[in-house]
Amino acid sequence: MTKAGIFGATGYAGYELVKILERHEGVKLEFVTSHSFAGQWLDDLYPQAPHLLLIEGETAPLEEVDVVFLALPHAAAAATAVSALQSNTRVIDLSADFRLKDVATYEVWYDVTHPAPALVETAVYGLTEFARDQLPEADLVANPGCYPTSILLALQPILAAGLPITGPIIADSKSGVSGAGRVPKQHIHFVEVADNFSPYKIGRMHRHLPEIEQGIASFSRSEDAPMLIFSPHLLPVPRGILSTIYVPLGGEPNADDLHDLYAQAYANEPFVHVLPAGQLASLAHVTHTNRCAIAVTLAGNTLILTSAIDNLIKGAAGQAVQNMNVMMGFDEGMGLTA
Amino acid sequence: MTKAGIFGATGYAGYELVKILERHEGVKLEFVTSHSFAGQWLDDLYPQAPHLLLIEGETAPLEEVDVVFLALPHAAAAATAVSALQSNTRVIDLSADFRLKDVATYEVWYDVTHPAPALVETAVYGLTEFARDQLPEADLVANPGCYPTSILLALQPILAAGLPITGPIIADSKSGVSGAGRVPKQHIHFVEVADNFSPYKIGRMHRHLPEIEQGIASFSRSEDAPMLIFSPHLLPVPRGILSTIYVPLGGEPNADDLHDLYAQAYANEPFVHVLPAGQLASLAHVTHTNRCAIAVTLAGNTLILTSAIDNLIKGAAGQAVQNMNVMMGFDEGMGLTA
Amino acid sequence: MTKAGIFGATGYAGYELVKILERHEGVKLEFVTSHSFAGQWLDDLYPQAPHLLLIEGETAPLEEVDVVFLALPHAAAAATAVSALQSNTRVIDLSADFRLKDVATYEVWYDVTHPAPALVETAVYGLTEFARDQLPEADLVANPGCYPTSILLALQPILAAGLPITGPIIADSKSGVSGAGRVPKQHIHFVEVADNFSPYKIGRMHRHLPEIEQGIASFSRSEDAPMLIFSPHLLPVPRGILSTIYVPLGGEPNADDLHDLYAQAYANEPFVHVLPAGQLASLAHVTHTNRCAIAVTLAGNTLILTSAIDNLIKGAAGQAVQNMNVMMGFDEGMGLTA
Amino acid sequence: MTKAGIFGATGYAGYELVKILERHEGVKLEFVTSHSFAGQWLDDLYPQAPHLLLIEGETAPLEEVDVVFLALPHAAAAATAVSALQSNTRVIDLSADFRLKDVATYEVWYDVTHPAPALVETAVYGLTEFARDQLPEADLVANPGCYPTSILLALQPILAAGLPITGPIIADSKSGVSGAGRVPKQHIHFVEVADNFSPYKIGRMHRHLPEIEQGIASFSRSEDAPMLIFSPHLLPVPRGILSTIYVPLGGEPNADDLHDLYAQAYANEPFVHVLPAGQLASLAHVTHTNRCAIAVTLAGNTLILTSAIDNLIKGAAGQAVQNMNVMMGFDEGMGLTA
Repeated sequence: MTKAGIFGATGYAGYELVKILERHEGVKLEFVTSHSFAGQWLDDLYPQAPHLLLIEGETAPLEEVDVVFLALPHAAAAATAVSALQSNTRVIDLSADFRLKDVATYEVWYDVTHPAPALVETAVYGLTEFARDQLPEADLVANPGCYPTSILLALQPILAAGLPITGPIIADSKSGVSGAGRVPKQHIHFVEVADNFSPYKIGRMHRHLPEIEQGIASFSRSEDAPMLIFSPHLLPVPRGILSTIYVPLGGEPNADDLHDLYAQAYANEPFVHVLPAGQLASLAHVTHTNRCAIAVTLAGNTLILTSAIDNLIKGAAGQAVQNMNVMMGFDEGMGLTA
Repeated sequence: MTKAGIFGATGYAGYELVKILERHEGVKLEFVTSHSFAGQWLDDLYPQAPHLLLIEGETAPLEEVDVVFLALPHAAAAATAVSALQSNTRVIDLSADFRLKDVATYEVWYDVTHPAPALVETAVYGLTEFARDQLPEADLVANPGCYPTSILLALQPILAAGLPITGPIIADSKSGVSGAGRVPKQHIHFVEVADNFSPYKIGRMHRHLPEIEQGIASFSRSEDAPMLIFSPHLLPVPRGILSTIYVPLGGEPNADDLHDLYAQAYANEPFVHVLPAGQLASLAHVTHTNRCAIAVTLAGNTLILTSAIDNLIKGAAGQAVQNMNVMMGFDEGMGLTA
Repeated sequence: MTKAGIFGATGYAGYELVKILERHEGVKLEFVTSHSFAGQWLDDLYPQAPHLLLIEGETAPLEEVDVVFLALPHAAAAATAVSALQSNTRVIDLSADFRLKDVATYEVWYDVTHPAPALVETAVYGLTEFARDQLPEADLVANPGCYPTSILLALQPILAAGLPITGPIIADSKSGVSGAGRVPKQHIHFVEVADNFSPYKIGRMHRHLPEIEQGIASFSRSEDAPMLIFSPHLLPVPRGILSTIYVPLGGEPNADDLHDLYAQAYANEPFVHVLPAGQLASLAHVTHTNRCAIAVTLAGNTLILTSAIDNLIKGAAGQAVQNMNVMMGFDEGMGLTA
Repeated sequence: MTKAGIFGATGYAGYELVKILERHEGVKLEFVTSHSFAGQWLDDLYPQAPHLLLIEGETAPLEEVDVVFLALPHAAAAATAVSALQSNTRVIDLSADFRLKDVATYEVWYDVTHPAPALVETAVYGLTEFARDQLPEADLVANPGCYPTSILLALQPILAAGLPITGPIIADSKSGVSGAGRVPKQHIHFVEVADNFSPYKIGRMHRHLPEIEQGIASFSRSEDAPMLIFSPHLLPVPRGILSTIYVPLGGEPNADDLHDLYAQAYANEPFVHVLPAGQLASLAHVTHTNRCAIAVTLAGNTLILTSAIDNLIKGAAGQAVQNMNVMMGFDEGMGLTA
C-alpha cells in the first residue's frame, strides 16, 4: 500500500485528488493539508467529501508517506518539495515550479525568485503519455498545466511527424471556471460569469505560453520549432477545457493521412481518444474523466485539432495520479477508471 | 429637471439605478459615489456603463441635488441620510435602515446601534402601490427589500380582504445570485453556484422576516396577524425572485372569487400583473422589468400565490425610481417602461 | 453473475442505468433497447457511453437474463413487464405503471387503461429503505418516482412517529431539467430554461401527487393521513431535486427531539444522510450519488424538512440498482458507491 | 409614421424585432405572422410580449405597410419577398436568401433552387456601416448573418487598409444557443448544452462561410482576397457571439498603428466600439444592445481581433431596424438605444 499526502487539499485540484485517492485501491491517504482551513474538516467545505481533518502543511508527517501531491501556489510548492525530497518522499507537484527547464524564464513569467533552482533539471515533466520511461525513477514530477496538457497531447503527433509547418500555431482555448481557482474573486463571481464569455491574456501573454512552447520544441524534429499564439477564454461552465488548434501545413496535406497519423499515435493509449473522422471533440466527451478527446480536421492546408480534457482531472489531479501509477508500478488506470 | 445622486453606484442595485436614471427624461444624474472604487470610472467595472467618474461619498455635493438614492450597506446609509436631509435633499434609501418601525427589532436583526433612530418614524415605507398617498410629501423613503416586495405585493389583497387565515403563512422564495451582492464571496463563486440549488436561513432566521411580518401586520384587518415562515433559496441565475406562498384559509374558499379579488385589486396597477387563471408566474415574466407577476391558485383550502419580480428592479432600483416618480410628480412609469 | 437487460437505454434514466450496471461487479449487461434509436450505438448518443448496440425491445432475449430494468414510458412498461414475467425474468420498472395500488387512480392520472391490472397488487413499491423485507421475493418492483423519493424519505420518520399533524403537508419541490426527459420540447430548450425558474402543476395537479399521498398513508399511524400540497418547479440545472417540506405539528414540538428522531431513524442507512442540526440540504450534497440528504429544522410549530437527491440516481437508476442488489442478495451499495 | 409588418414573429429574431419596433417612435407595427402559431397570441409564447394576434403569412395585408421584415426560413423568405415587392412594399430579409450574390453558390450551400434569382442582384447587403449609400434607395435588403456581422465588421479596416495578408484568416467564433433557433432539437436541449461546449462545422463547412468570404473579397483591395477558416462553437449562454479572429500580416506590423487604424475607421460609428488598447471584447460588452465591440491585439505578426455582438440584435433584428432607419431617413439609432 502506497502512503500518500496531499498539500493544498481544499482547492479544486486538491479536492479532486482526494476523491481519486480515496477510491484508489493501492493508496492510503495519510494526510491532507490546508493553510487557510487548517483545523477544519474537509466535508465542511465540500459536502460530499470524506470526513478528513485538514492540518497545517508544516506539521505534515512527510517521513511517513511515500509520495506527496503538491496542489499549492507556485513558490510555496517548491519549498515544500525541498522538504519532502529531504525526507526521501517522492513529489508530484501540480504547480508550475518545476515545469519550465529554464529558470530565468520561470522567474520572468512567475515574478518570483525560484526557491529551488537546483531541483529543476531533476524534475520529470509529467505529460504521462510521453514520460513513461522516466517516471519509474523520478523523485520529482512536474505535473503539466491544464492548457498545456490539452494542447501538447494534440500537437505531439503532427510535430513528431516532422511535416513542414509554415507559420505560427494558434491555440484558441476555452476553459471552465474551476481553472481560475477556488479563492473568490470578482471576475469569477457567478453574476459576472453567467451569460458571459470572455478572452483574457491572449496572444503571448499567458503563463502557460512558455510551458507549451517548451513542449512544442521538445516534440519538434527541426531546430526551428513553430511559434505559438495562445488565446485563453473563460467559459461559463464549472469544468473542462476545449482547445481549437490551427496548424498551417506545407506541402499537400491529406485528411485521411493525418487522421491515420493520430489514430496510430494514440492507438494504445487508454486515456487519449482520437475520434472517428468527421467527429469533433467537446466537453461532453471528457468531463469527470481522465480522458483527452482529440479530433482531426483538415481545411485547406490548415490542420484543425479540437482537443478536450477535464481541466481538474487529465489537466491536474487525474494526470498526477496517472503519473503516480507509473512511478509506483501500479496499473496506469488505477483510481482513474470508474 | 430633477437633479439626483447615487451613493454606492457600483453594487448591482446601484448600477441598475444608473441605467434607469440615465434614460429617465426628467432626471439629471449629478454624481455617483463608491467607497471601494472612488477615482475610477464606472465603465471600468461595467463595460456597458456610461463613462462616469466615481467619487467618494464624503465629497458628494449633497446641496446641489434634489434627491439622493442610497445603495449603501446598512448603518452607512442612515448616516448619509442624516447629512442629505440636513442639506434639504430628499432621500430614497435602498438599505434596511428605515424599513423597520421598531428600532429595537432593527438593532437585534442587524446587530448595530441605529445611527439615526429619530428619523425612523418619519420614513415612508415605499412599497409604491400602497404608499402613493404619503410619497409626495416624503423626505425619506425606505425602499422595501427584494423578498418583502415579492411577498407583500402577493399577500396584500388576501390580507386586506380579511378572510380567516388558519395558520402560519409560508413563503418559499428563490432568488438569483445578484441578491447576494457584488462583493466576491465563497458561496457565490461561479463553481459553487452552477449546477447547485440551496436553501439558507429558512424558517424564521432571515433579516427580511421582521420586515415582511411588519407588512403583514399593516395589511391585516385583524389584531392577530398571521405568523410567517420564510424560506429563501439561492437560484443559479443572475437575477429574479420567485416566491411560492401558501396561505391556509378558513371557510370555503372559492378559486374564482380569489382570482377576482386579485384581478380587481391590481386592475389599475401598471406594474403588478395578475395572471389569467390557470397560469403561473415565472422569472421569464419579469426579468429586466419593473413588473411583479402574481398568479392565484387554490388547492384544497390553501391559497397558493406565485409571485415573481426582478430583484434588482422592482425589488430595488426600479421601485426606488417608481417612488421618486411619485415623490416628484412624474408619471409613475418614467424611466421604467422600455 | 446476474444477467440484466435495460429497456429504454437512451433516456436519461436509462443511460444512468447503463453507467451503473457497467461498473457493477455482480452484473453482466446483456442488452440495451431503444425504440427510436434501434440499430444505432449508444456512444453515438452519449459520447462517454460504452460501445453498445441498441436493439428493438421486441427482439430482446428476455429468457436469457435474470432481471430487466424498464426505463420506458408508462403503459409501454407494463406491457413489457408482462412479457418478462412470462419468461421468468424479474422486473424493475422505473415507470409509473405499478406504483399506484389503486388501478382506477392510475387510469385517471395517466389517462390510459392499465395494460396489466392483475399485476399491480403483486408489485413491491421499491422505496428501498422501507421495502427490504419484500424485495428478496419480489418478481416485480415498482421503482418510485423522483419527487416521491425525495419527499417520502423525508416524511417517513415524522409520520411513523405518530405526532399530531394539524393541516396539510406542503412539499415545495425543485427539479433539474433531466427530470423532464430527453425528448426535445419547447419548455426544455436551453434558451427557455437558462436564467429562468418556473413552477408547474402546483397544488394537486401533478401525477406524482397520488403516489406521494399513497406513501404518506402507508407511513401514517392514524386513519386520517394528512393531505398533500405539492408544488414542483423547474430549476435551470441538469440534475437534482430539492424538496422543501412543511409539516404543521401539534403539541409543543422540540427541535432537538425532532433531529434525534431523524438521526436515529436513518442511523444505519448507507444512502440516507441526516445532516447535523443547523445545516440544510442542497443539491451539492447529492448530485452524482445515490444519496438522500435530509435536514431537520423547526420554525414555530412547523417542521421544515429539506431533502435532496439526484433525480437520475436515487430518484431513478440508482434506487433501481439498490433494489436489484437487495433482490439478488448483493451488498446493497454495489455499483453505487464510487 | 412608417407602417411595418413582421413575418415569422415567433422565432427569437422575430420576437426581438417586435420588441424593438414596439418602442420605435417612428414605426407602427401593423401585423405579425407565424405559420406554426397562427391564431394564437404572441404573449402566450413570450410572457413579456405585447398582446398581438399572430396571423398566417398568406393573409398578411402587404399593401397596407411600407416595409416588411422577413424572419423566415430561407426559400420561404424569398417567396414572400416577391409578393411584398409586387405590392410596392420594401423588404428587409433576415434570411440568407439574398445575401449571396452568386446564385449557384447559394443553391449549393442551401440545397434549394433559388425562388427568386432575378432579385438577387437588386438586393443591398445590409451591413449597415458599409451600406449607407445604397440603403435609402433600396427596396430589398439582405440583412447579414450573425457570424458574418461579427467577423466582417472586425475585418473591414484591415482589409481596406491593404496591408499584406500572408495566409488564411482564421475566425474562431462562439455563439449563444438562440443562434440555433427556437424549434426544439436534441442538441439544444438544456441538459445537452449546460456544462458543455462544442465546435461544429469547423473549417470550411458552415453556410456562413461563403457569405463571409464574399464580404472579405468586397473589402479587399487586392484581387487575391485571403481564404477563410471559420470555426463556430456552441456556447452555453442564451445569446451573444464572440469571434476571435487571427489575421497573419506581412511586413512589420505595429500594434499602435493597428489600433489607430481601427479607432479611426470607427470613430464616428454609433454602434461599433473599438476598445482601448489592452482591453478585450466580451459578451458582457454587447448583450442586449445593438453594439459591436472590437478589440485589437498584435502577437508577433498575427493581428488578433476579438469582436462581440448580440446575435439577436446587431446580428439580426437590431441591424435590420438600423437598416430600416437609414432606408426611411430616421435617425439611425431610433429604437436601438435605450
